Amino acid sequence: MDAEVAVRDNRLSIRWGDGHRSAFHAMWLRDHCPCPACRHPATGQRLLETAGLPDDLRLVSARVASAAVEAVWSDGHAAALDPAWLRHHCYCEADRAAERPRRRFWRAEGRPGLPEAQHADIVADADALREWLAAIDVYGLAVLHGVPVVPGEVTRVAELFGYVRETNYGRLFDVRSVVNPTNLAYTGLGLSCHTDNPYRDPAPTLQLLHCLSSSATGGDSVLVDGFEVAERLRATEPGKFDLLARVPVPFRFQDGDADLRTEQPVITLDVRGAVVAIRLNNRSKAPLRLESDLVEPWYAAYLTFARMLESSAYQLGFKLGPGDLFIVDNLRVLHGRTAFSGAGQRHLQGCYADMDGLRSKLAVLERGRADVIGRLFERMRRYGAGAYLGEKVSITDHMRQAAHAAESDGAPPALIAAALLHDVAYVVHQSAGDPALDDGHPEIGARFLAAHFVPAVSEPVRLHVAAKRYLCAVEPGYRSALSPASIRTLAVQGGPYDEAEARAFAAAPFAHDAVRLRRYDDAAKVVGADIPDLEHYRPLLEGLLIERSVP
Amino acid sequence: MDAEVAVRDNRLSIRWGDGHRSAFHAMWLRDHCPCPACRHPATGQRLLETAGLPDDLRLVSARVASAAVEAVWSDGHAAALDPAWLRHHCYCEADRAAERPRRRFWRAEGRPGLPEAQHADIVADADALREWLAAIDVYGLAVLHGVPVVPGEVTRVAELFGYVRETNYGRLFDVRSVVNPTNLAYTGLGLSCHTDNPYRDPAPTLQLLHCLSSSATGGDSVLVDGFEVAERLRATEPGKFDLLARVPVPFRFQDGDADLRTEQPVITLDVRGAVVAIRLNNRSKAPLRLESDLVEPWYAAYLTFARMLESSAYQLGFKLGPGDLFIVDNLRVLHGRTAFSGAGQRHLQGCYADMDGLRSKLAVLERGRADVIGRLFERMRRYGAGAYLGEKVSITDHMRQAAHAAESDGAPPALIAAALLHDVAYVVHQSAGDPALDDGHPEIGARFLAAHFVPAVSEPVRLHVAAKRYLCAVEPGYRSALSPASIRTLAVQGGPYDEAEARAFAAAPFAHDAVRLRRYDDAAKVVGADIPDLEHYRPLLEGLLIERSVP
Repeated sequence: MDAEVAVRDNRLSIRWGDGHRSAFHAMWLRDHCPCPACRHPATGQRLLETAGLPDDLRLVSARVASAAVEAVWSDGHAAALDPAWLRHHCYCEADRAAERPRRRFWRAEGRPGLPEAQHADIVADADALREWLAAIDVYGLAVLHGVPVVPGEVTRVAELFGYVRETNYGRLFDVRSVVNPTNLAYTGLGLSCHTDNPYRDPAPTLQLLHCLSSSATGGDSVLVDGFEVAERLRATEPGKFDLLARVPVPFRFQDGDADLRTEQPVITLDVRGAVVAIRLNNRSKAPLRLESDLVEPWYAAYLTFARMLESSAYQLGFKLGPGDLFIVDNLRVLHGRTAFSGAGQRHLQGCYADMDGLRSKLAVLERGRADVIGRLFERMRRYGAGAYLGEKVSITDHMRQAAHAAESDGAPPALIAAALLHDVAYVVHQSAGDPALDDGHPEIGARFLAAHFVPAVSEPVRLHVAAKRYLCAVEPGYRSALSPASIRTLAVQGGPYDEAEARAFAAAPFAHDAVRLRRYDDAAKVVGADIPDLEHYRPLLEGLLIERSVP
Repeated sequence: MDAEVAVRDNRLSIRWGDGHRSAFHAMWLRDHCPCPACRHPATGQRLLETAGLPDDLRLVSARVASAAVEAVWSDGHAAALDPAWLRHHCYCEADRAAERPRRRFWRAEGRPGLPEAQHADIVADADALREWLAAIDVYGLAVLHGVPVVPGEVTRVAELFGYVRETNYGRLFDVRSVVNPTNLAYTGLGLSCHTDNPYRDPAPTLQLLHCLSSSATGGDSVLVDGFEVAERLRATEPGKFDLLARVPVPFRFQDGDADLRTEQPVITLDVRGAVVAIRLNNRSKAPLRLESDLVEPWYAAYLTFARMLESSAYQLGFKLGPGDLFIVDNLRVLHGRTAFSGAGQRHLQGCYADMDGLRSKLAVLERGRADVIGRLFERMRRYGAGAYLGEKVSITDHMRQAAHAAESDGAPPALIAAALLHDVAYVVHQSAGDPALDDGHPEIGARFLAAHFVPAVSEPVRLHVAAKRYLCAVEPGYRSALSPASIRTLAVQGGPYDEAEARAFAAAPFAHDAVRLRRYDDAAKVVGADIPDLEHYRPLLEGLLIERSVP
């Protein structure tokens, strides 16, 4: 293990091989002791009763022993800690600052359209389901087409990823909009944007609406990202934002069988001040009981926010046809409909479900997908140990060296990943042929990478041999500094570019990154270099998988 | 209508007959306009789009017209507002301050026991169900005995008041504690107090556990009111309370089919600073990612709170036998179990549900019960209009006058209610016979009142004729000041007490209140007095109904 450890200020202090520093408090570390007495091996749940630890617990000693950090505490307990786990859970300021929120806010302007999928695809293909669920997690909404036009199907869609939340409306409810103005509840009037069931606590966190028939004119659905609008309000009118976040509003629904009421602010913030819920439904807002001085300011804030939500700048409009379904994060994305008129029917069925089930299913699907990295590392260890293109290092050591060079050079994560995986064709694709003769390996590797990683990883890999031909053409002395093996393969690869080819290359997207990658590649042929293990790169690679970049 | 109205500072200003003052802002009032164009008559839901109102909306005029307040706004809208509705929704500081929270916190010390009921009773009797649900709302827990020992019965109990929340554990889950130490998950180890599923968002707000078999030694259940303990922490160690309320803690559960995680503080506060949720489960606490300076203080706070929760001062212990079931508010009351050993089995089945469904069912049951007041007023109007015992006022006017005298005297709410209802026997019980001859009316009235109201209402009524006999005995001149009709009935009622009877009366509970009530009774025979309408007393009576006083 390439790290130095010490006990300092009652913390385990680690200086990692790459220079990164971590410090783990004695109590934090003891609380997470992974030994079988402290944590149940099969379930991973904690057996240790944290409250039973002494207040004055101290870390007595720590040392590197083979592949682990051995720690001893003042309660007499000792444990062997996994360095990769420690590195992954480092809570230094830099690592915490690097955590990116998964959600992305949106407005109608500049949005290409709704995230959507075909019902047949998400039923049959785990990847399609994963991408659809990820869109809901990231954007708070998605559409599904080709859903069987069968009553009750909406609950079966919910069961693809979670559990129906039954309420007083049933497991599912019918929204039959018969065009019949004698019945006010089912008129063709437009409905302003709202979240469902703000009078419920906990409010349902997902709503699904499935169209069974739609022959009326009008009746378009509108959706708006309440978090985007709330953040806009926070930026432009912080006083109004603040009032909506701190004044509890009573919501109520009553009928013969139910009497639901709760008090919640229109905007709910978490302990860090991030917006985590919107509750807005003008139809079920009950009389405010508020300090007299706040009544007028609160109404001013409410009117501003409600009008912003109705602005076309934020609202996505579309029309559900038979077999279409939309799903929204009901604490985030508000929905409404435009007025409709004329003859015809409009019959939707809806149900509620919850985000926790959806996110759990998504995480399980991503866990399978994250195994891409585990399987890749496994192959790199197994098939990448052999000599490489006549160089004296193995293929995998060569790629690790290239990654280390990129990291030392301060390259961005995607370029470090490209360096680590630039010759991946030789380990993932046994049919890549004889590396000494086959110049197809950049394309094969890039194609594999493009299926799993963002383009900033795959594209420099695609161009890394082209970059060599380019540098031979434009940089005096480059060619003569190449290794003998690399000079040998240059001919097979087509030789140096001519002037036009070099110009075309330089203009291509990712050419600059490919040139940087090429230099890491060329330098990565040192025998016995002291470089990080593959596992060091796992978190970085996980951050570059495609599911983080749904459209 | 006995009130003066005016428009002042763009508000509807009302001075009620009893001197109370209300002020309703123009926008607030317009938002709650009850006319059929603004509010759907059948559903009570708002049709008015509040966001469409002009920012500078003004209240143009207001006047009393027959039984309503007529208001006109600057948008041209006019409406007739119900005075009783207005009085009920007054948001003056005094009325807001008088709102009592329904919840009561508890600790083991000084608690007589658990709220409990028989399964057969809550299935058959709406009142028994209402009382059992009210206990869960007020105390966050209750026990049920005599539940059929049938697998799946736990979900049928949940369906008595709400909806099962299905999760990855299913609609219900088995907690089979086979005494078999080779399986760590099902050992006889004690489990420290915890809330279930803190890694879920929304976490289930109710948990039910039903005992099917229990022949092991030990394995007692323990329950603790997390809100009481949190408030104690806030009072004694505010810094620690604050840390637990503002530091998000990651919780996680993983198995083959699920990967649930969320970040929530141990203590959740609402916008007013009240504790609304506890999330604590040491088994599923995941690694904190926290500013380095906060790690040690947070652990110190966590250890303190977790140890308080384990203190016998707070923990109620009991043992579930076959057919017993307990239910807890899972965001408030933590549960755990003591260790058990020996041969035998322990098989529980559990399910989750939500408080909103429970509170809705409770409100519907209380609505039926609250009709006691509506039905009472109806009978007082219908049957209490006749002459009363030879006096010149009607029975109901007499009771209204007595209540008004009590209110003017600064009597507590229960005594005002007793005054309002002291001759209730004549309106609720047609078989009370001829009031001129029948002295059983205090007992008949008290029996009716005791079924619906707290003893401070029923008991003075039971004694209000005894108080007359007492005053005739001990107060010179009292008898001669009585009305002729009252002197006539005295003989039928037994005449003045002797000395021993008077001493015994004075020592009885509520005797003092009965004497006060008697004086209001004697004074309440004025023809044409200007006194409040019955509806004036509705909120006061609602606050004295028995469901507010579950044991």
